[in-house]
Amino acid sequence: MDNSSANINALDALIQALRRLPGVGLKSASRMAFHLLQHDRAGAQIMAQALANAASQVLHCSQCNTFTQNEVCNTCSDVQRDQTRLCVVETPADQLALERTGAFKGLYFVLMGKLSPLDGIGPNEIGLKKLFQRVQTSPIEEVILATNFTAEGETTAHVISEGLKARSIKVTRLARGVPIGSELEYVDLGTIAHALVDRR
Amino acid sequence: MDNSSANINALDALIQALRRLPGVGLKSASRMAFHLLQHDRAGAQIMAQALANAASQVLHCSQCNTFTQNEVCNTCSDVQRDQTRLCVVETPADQLALERTGAFKGLYFVLMGKLSPLDGIGPNEIGLKKLFQRVQTSPIEEVILATNFTAEGETTAHVISEGLKARSIKVTRLARGVPIGSELEYVDLGTIAHALVDRR
Repeated sequence: MDNSSANINALDALIQALRRLPGVGLKSASRMAFHLLQHDRAGAQIMAQALANAASQVLHCSQCNTFTQNEVCNTCSDVQRDQTRLCVVETPADQLALERTGAFKGLYFVLMGKLSPLDGIGPNEIGLKKLFQRVQTSPIEEVILATNFTAEGETTAHVISEGLKARSIKVTRLARGVPIGSELEYVDLGTIAHALVDRR
Repeated sequence: MDNSSANINALDALIQALRRLPGVGLKSASRMAFHLLQHDRAGAQIMAQALANAASQVLHCSQCNTFTQNEVCNTCSDVQRDQTRLCVVETPADQLALERTGAFKGLYFVLMGKLSPLDGIGPNEIGLKKLFQRVQTSPIEEVILATNFTAEGETTAHVISEGLKARSIKVTRLARGVPIGSELEYVDLGTIAHALVDRR
């Protein structure tokens, strides 16, 4: 009560902090803060602890660059995986999607982003040097490019592909084609054209 | 490195914690965690501190029930405000919306919710006892009900209105009518009917 300017400071600070989350504006942040303070204070404490822990403990795997708390992540240290195939993905979420298919038993390299010169993200920011080094110092025979099929993802795949061709490594790309369950009528023309060219 | 089961624990714990936020599912929580760890670790620490501070420091105003770090909030302790009028709102955000109009100079009571029996929110959960006590122990002449014009908001307004009538306090409700800037053609019939009845 000795400091009336501190009246709403903790609440305002929380709202401002929540706005740092992607896709969260002032109204969402206010609603989140209200929910936590009114209905889930224990949750707010748990979240505070989880944020502090993750920010201080989560590192990047020295092999594949993904998030881990160890020097080398579980996937990279699994000797049962095929050490000759390396799949390059943009994010841990992409890696998880591939893992869930159960169709790939090799290793990964997680770029943690994609080339985007306009946002100041160049080859150094997405660890291309680390990727090329890894390919040269391990028994990798094939690199599978599984970056997204967006403009930036394609550019990233192209740059990696050029870099690896110079090192005479086999480079493949996920197949483009018509998604399962879709009707041709509603599929975009570029996809149909690719599916025609890559028919089997 | 001595504990391989802790490999992704800090990250998973963070994702689970972020899912406590309203409107945030698994994919959003993963994207938020990825963003914070990859691009804004300092932000994660700031957010952790803000959450811990708010959860431990933010109290409810003993007068109006809103969030504050003091015994009585700034609005309630402002002697320049009209002490005879009390506006009842659901949330601090609603109070802020009214404050921004500059059209009300009285005091507020913030329910911090609305009656919603199906969700287990009854009169005690939204502090109706505190409201009735306050009305009886202070020089309030008029209570303005500014709960939302939803089913729950209307029910809440009705219950408060009945409670206050028994205490012979003047009770008013925000006017229903056509919003400024809207075309009658696109306004729902209930609103137009109300605007007709309440014409002036």
